[in-house]
Amino acid sequence: MDIKEYMQGVGRAARQASRAMAKADSGAKNAALEAIAIAIEREAERLLAANASDMKAAEAAGLEPALLDRLALTPKGVAAMAEGLRQIAKLPDPIGEMDDFSYRPSGIQVGKMRVPLGVVGIIYEARPNVTADAAGLCLKSGNAAILRGGSEAVRANQAIAECVREGLARAGLPELAVQVIETTDRSAVGELITMPEYVDVIVPRGGKGLIERISREARVPVIKHLDGVCHVYIDDDADLDKAVRIADNAKTHRYGTCNTMETLLVAQAMAPKVLPLLGRIYTEKRVELRACAASRALLQEAGFQDVAVATETDWHTEYLAPILSIRIVPGMEEAISHINHYGSHHTDAIVTENYSRARRFLREVDSASVMVNASTRFADGFEYGLGAEIGISTDKIHARGPVGLQGLTSQKWVVLGDGHVRS
Amino acid sequence: MDIKEYMQGVGRAARQASRAMAKADSGAKNAALEAIAIAIEREAERLLAANASDMKAAEAAGLEPALLDRLALTPKGVAAMAEGLRQIAKLPDPIGEMDDFSYRPSGIQVGKMRVPLGVVGIIYEARPNVTADAAGLCLKSGNAAILRGGSEAVRANQAIAECVREGLARAGLPELAVQVIETTDRSAVGELITMPEYVDVIVPRGGKGLIERISREARVPVIKHLDGVCHVYIDDDADLDKAVRIADNAKTHRYGTCNTMETLLVAQAMAPKVLPLLGRIYTEKRVELRACAASRALLQEAGFQDVAVATETDWHTEYLAPILSIRIVPGMEEAISHINHYGSHHTDAIVTENYSRARRFLREVDSASVMVNASTRFADGFEYGLGAEIGISTDKIHARGPVGLQGLTSQKWVVLGDGHVRS
Repeated sequence: MDIKEYMQGVGRAARQASRAMAKADSGAKNAALEAIAIAIEREAERLLAANASDMKAAEAAGLEPALLDRLALTPKGVAAMAEGLRQIAKLPDPIGEMDDFSYRPSGIQVGKMRVPLGVVGIIYEARPNVTADAAGLCLKSGNAAILRGGSEAVRANQAIAECVREGLARAGLPELAVQVIETTDRSAVGELITMPEYVDVIVPRGGKGLIERISREARVPVIKHLDGVCHVYIDDDADLDKAVRIADNAKTHRYGTCNTMETLLVAQAMAPKVLPLLGRIYTEKRVELRACAASRALLQEAGFQDVAVATETDWHTEYLAPILSIRIVPGMEEAISHINHYGSHHTDAIVTENYSRARRFLREVDSASVMVNASTRFADGFEYGLGAEIGISTDKIHARGPVGLQGLTSQKWVVLGDGHVRS
Repeated sequence: MDIKEYMQGVGRAARQASRAMAKADSGAKNAALEAIAIAIEREAERLLAANASDMKAAEAAGLEPALLDRLALTPKGVAAMAEGLRQIAKLPDPIGEMDDFSYRPSGIQVGKMRVPLGVVGIIYEARPNVTADAAGLCLKSGNAAILRGGSEAVRANQAIAECVREGLARAGLPELAVQVIETTDRSAVGELITMPEYVDVIVPRGGKGLIERISREARVPVIKHLDGVCHVYIDDDADLDKAVRIADNAKTHRYGTCNTMETLLVAQAMAPKVLPLLGRIYTEKRVELRACAASRALLQEAGFQDVAVATETDWHTEYLAPILSIRIVPGMEEAISHINHYGSHHTDAIVTENYSRARRFLREVDSASVMVNASTRFADGFEYGLGAEIGISTDKIHARGPVGLQGLTSQKWVVLGDGHVRS
């Protein structure tokens, strides 16, 4: 197979399908989502069998247990895929929304209409559920999609792709509106990210290394998520109870997610009150602590001997594990400097009852999500009310933070006149 | 001078200045704009002398008359620069705007805050007035700016840069918030577009070749304007008078602008009525016509012998000159296909009294600006009410069409809680 030729064909077909998708009405798009859900439920056994083959091959190839875990499909997982598609069908259709219309001094009326981006390329890990999810989001937002999942999931992905094609056809939409790359050849990714004539945006999901490489080599705009070095800062005027609850939840609710706190910053005056309480919680939950000299001394004094010394590297690190770095800072000024310097501009929270400091923190912390008295774990498309998310962007261009249907759209200008000409 | 080292220094200083700019209040930013305007007025003679040296060198180097024309500064031009800065000061400050706040089922309150992009790099032709304009727009939107104007304007640009620095300092803002590249070495551009650690977005202005090269080589997001192959489609149900007025204005109001009509599409049934009227106007205004066989026959029958045969290349071409291609189409369906295939997704208009076709045209034409019964010449930041524009984007990502202050901003998510944690 000539990969370049194959990908050019995929791109051309996607571009063509995108024209029909842009015109598709909400009824047809929702009917397709429902038909795909039905096909997935009907084909559940075939999907599970395809996944079993994928799992067997991946085990034989020695794939890591964590990755095998993400690859695995269960009957419950298949049902969740169908349910996810039905939820996307229930979301309001963003396409065609018009707003901001006003008359200008010239007499023309100017406003904006929301439109699809066109063709969206999504590159993701070996997780078959993402295939259904990404197909659904692109379809609902009126885009054509080119999906490239991790090669270990190729059999399940192709089985899901058949259900998607069936659903599109049943609703009278072009079958090629969602294409799942068939080849596992890695050079297909290289082609996909360098076809600006056919692809309008790339959404890469996966490890930081992969995403950095894609960003470097892409000739197409990329909506990317790098890492989540998230902070909670406990201010002088923090409510002790809220501080403990939030610092606990932000770290221990889930360890492997990008919105998990990785560094806890504590104002000097609060440290003696809050650190002993937190030391106990983290010790009970077996969270490894790496602390600055001052916080380490405080924790040891309170009886927690097993605290490591944090190094410069720790402040930069997304552990994605039960590890937490802790630093005592003189006050909010230094906390903001630390966050803007060492953080990844993902999600950062302050715990405080002080109005002025809350206001300054929100303005001056340069992150996709800034929070007052809430756990960083809330940084999520569902929690924010987007209904579903295609990813979380750490970029500032186009989409920042959780990206839902709207992030897969653009706005065009609409001008209504009555024979108006410019003078 | 080591260009790489120089540009890294510029980038580092810009990143640092951007932090202070993000926090700057509207009062300080407006004071800086006013102080720059005053400095420009006071230094008018120095600016004109610097420009005179630029002009002399450019003439000696044999620069084209059209480019010399853009390079030239007059006392009126200097006054207009100062006036432009004062107009930017009068625009509402977009930074810190908060909207879309709502309570979520979890109890948190979620909304968005508008924030600067950070550091904006602008690469433009040898037009000194753009230096003042771009500096003003970046300053007002809370960004730091790195400006690289055409090398022929280097003396005037440095004189303007001094006024900008003075104004920033007077308002207590960092002088390095606006840096005008001093070297005329072309490799400075190569460095500027490959420093993602220091530059958040690049706005290139100038010829299509330059912009294509920058887009290809950039490692930083680019807000770009390629070309404007704009259409007017005169529908079966067009009002004859409006059709003539709009087709005249869209072509002949100004020939060298990107929103000028380059191809006129006419519905078969309307052609015999409207083409003779337009043939007369275009002939009087010495617009060269290149027509499809059918429209050529009609025009010749009406007495306009001097009509060339349009070739495939014409449908793709942005003339930027008194030349117009004309094509008769069976109806709107074919007009939309022509526009989406041959156009540049910039600005396209329909002239019609038919409600359903107007509605379909607006939805299905895939362009940054779509218009009903209005001249394409309205596609402009001032006409749309943006107050000022940094450029017109033909991209779909981030900003589409005229880009004003808002296009130089992003939105971050704000979460307000009261000790909320995720369960």
